[in-house]
Amino acid sequence: MSKVWNFYAGPATLPAEAIARAKADLPYWQDTGMSVMEISHRSKEYDALHHEAMDLMTELLGLDDDHHVLFLQGGASLQFAMLPMNFLPQGGSADYVITGSWSKKALKEANIVGSARIAATTEKDGKFTRIPTQGELDLDPNAAYLHLTSNNTIAGTQWHAFPDAGNVHLVADMSSDLLWRPFDANRFSLIYAGAQKNLGPSGVTVVIIRKSWAEKANQGLPTLLQYGTHIAKDSLYNTAPTFAIYMLRNTLAWVKERGGLDAMERRNRTKADRLYNVIDGNPGFFSCPVEKNSRSVMNVVFRLPSEELEAKFVAEAKDAGLVGLKGHRSVGGCRASIYNAMEPEGVETLARFMEAFAAANG
Amino acid sequence: MSKVWNFYAGPATLPAEAIARAKADLPYWQDTGMSVMEISHRSKEYDALHHEAMDLMTELLGLDDDHHVLFLQGGASLQFAMLPMNFLPQGGSADYVITGSWSKKALKEANIVGSARIAATTEKDGKFTRIPTQGELDLDPNAAYLHLTSNNTIAGTQWHAFPDAGNVHLVADMSSDLLWRPFDANRFSLIYAGAQKNLGPSGVTVVIIRKSWAEKANQGLPTLLQYGTHIAKDSLYNTAPTFAIYMLRNTLAWVKERGGLDAMERRNRTKADRLYNVIDGNPGFFSCPVEKNSRSVMNVVFRLPSEELEAKFVAEAKDAGLVGLKGHRSVGGCRASIYNAMEPEGVETLARFMEAFAAANG
Repeated sequence: MSKVWNFYAGPATLPAEAIARAKADLPYWQDTGMSVMEISHRSKEYDALHHEAMDLMTELLGLDDDHHVLFLQGGASLQFAMLPMNFLPQGGSADYVITGSWSKKALKEANIVGSARIAATTEKDGKFTRIPTQGELDLDPNAAYLHLTSNNTIAGTQWHAFPDAGNVHLVADMSSDLLWRPFDANRFSLIYAGAQKNLGPSGVTVVIIRKSWAEKANQGLPTLLQYGTHIAKDSLYNTAPTFAIYMLRNTLAWVKERGGLDAMERRNRTKADRLYNVIDGNPGFFSCPVEKNSRSVMNVVFRLPSEELEAKFVAEAKDAGLVGLKGHRSVGGCRASIYNAMEPEGVETLARFMEAFAAANG
Repeated sequence: MSKVWNFYAGPATLPAEAIARAKADLPYWQDTGMSVMEISHRSKEYDALHHEAMDLMTELLGLDDDHHVLFLQGGASLQFAMLPMNFLPQGGSADYVITGSWSKKALKEANIVGSARIAATTEKDGKFTRIPTQGELDLDPNAAYLHLTSNNTIAGTQWHAFPDAGNVHLVADMSSDLLWRPFDANRFSLIYAGAQKNLGPSGVTVVIIRKSWAEKANQGLPTLLQYGTHIAKDSLYNTAPTFAIYMLRNTLAWVKERGGLDAMERRNRTKADRLYNVIDGNPGFFSCPVEKNSRSVMNVVFRLPSEELEAKFVAEAKDAGLVGLKGHRSVGGCRASIYNAMEPEGVETLARFMEAFAAANG
């Protein structure tokens, strides 16, 4: 089998260099005589790798001394629960901005643990087509925190400027766009991201947490569910998901080698512009349901004139080596996920395929 | 670097065939044109792999229809909390048998969540050197469950016959010995095991659960912390740790190909006997702190005449390509972890090294 261009929303394509490095490191990693999967998480060799990954994340994001990088398990779905368990006190309330399915799931878990309210929602007729403006946010100044989802993989929307939360702790699920561009991560009290979209394989969750906030968290929780446990032990309280962290390191090293977050932003904007230009340039055939100023640079969603044509498009694209273009089952349509690791050549191949398909079927 | 014999307690050595298969499957897995790390967990290709791993576990253990295999994240440490969160009701109590550090950690988490009692402990002067007899167990007939640790990696002890719990649900942490031999898994209401010792790499936790018990669990928990969530969705409620499950599949396929659990038991007993015979055959030099009928077949712990000789032994063994023989930092001494994947040749090499070291230093 030869290479395909992989547009899956996640788990998603990884840098070819990160995969090649993994292959070269099997069966023996460095001078250990074993694979990285087989070495103790307490060995000096693994410890160096673990801290290299933490340091790369800290450097790429420009984190200050009060922000700590954690590598946890359980995905964003466990963070939906850990966040309120740690930071939503009895009798308190947290604010959630609802911009899609993932925000709704986060809100649901907060309401299982305690009490949360909706600071804004852009849901209309069951659909999400935009990000709210600052003026639309009804913020509780006494909220335990304000939660948002930075990029919405299903709706294809993305926050292009983060809101002013006043004195309230700002929290974001950045599972699908962390590291896509430079931003002021130090404004956030907590950022979490399942790795399997823009950072690495599934199985590791990156958390960036303000230590001074974590010190005020609920101390009565099971040990593993307290952020403080993982801060104190540099995410080695229990056995870390070592291979997933190794692949995360490979990906972070690739981001740095390619020029860091400035270079990623240029690369990603060029890719997204190419696809949105095809969509906007064929208005009778392609359409994007998202308002222009809310369009995602990571997940380009689009419709064709009929569901039959969409099915034909996905099938013919697959035959042409363009895989994973079916939209999420909850909304239908088509979707091209073009995270950091997607090469411009893949996007160019897709853009030309879209143009040819429109010409042949329009 | 050439291969070493890896005696780490976990993450631990994996079958060479499982590692070779992983290397061959990079960068392209099957006919997908991408690695298994990059494909959607909702794809038909991944789904087949996921169920193959579940089916292999079910077949190797001979599970009945009321027992379900789950693949979770968070390791045994998260199970320490999930178990009482799901099954320890307010006002109820659970029984714990304490045979080492890991049982104590499990008990501690149960007492954070609710109320647990010690049904037996073999701790004496801060050390654990044996497994209790049935007669020593002070069982509460109304306990929510009875919890034990089947193999104690630090103490080097192992249950060779599981206790009669009466009508109480039997639960075991089998992180370090699940699949070492055939046993009646259907007697247990819940078994959990971090994969990184006897099953695969770190990052996936195998749980075997009695479905009819899970139906009675606490329904008020965050979604991801309910066993029922994962039963209903075949462990695909959220993104699974796909590569770790792929490696688990590779290991389970290897166990089956090598003859299943009967063959594993013969292989493991032969390996352990060889090392214990060296220890018992050099009584002035080596000693095993564990009572004979409680000795672990997975983790052979032993002492030398002095800490200086132990340090010399570990260092010279490493130079000879025998790695990971230092005992756990909490107890000192030496330890050889010889899980399923450790080849008899590795144990034979270690046994001869031990004999030569005793002759040269005794």
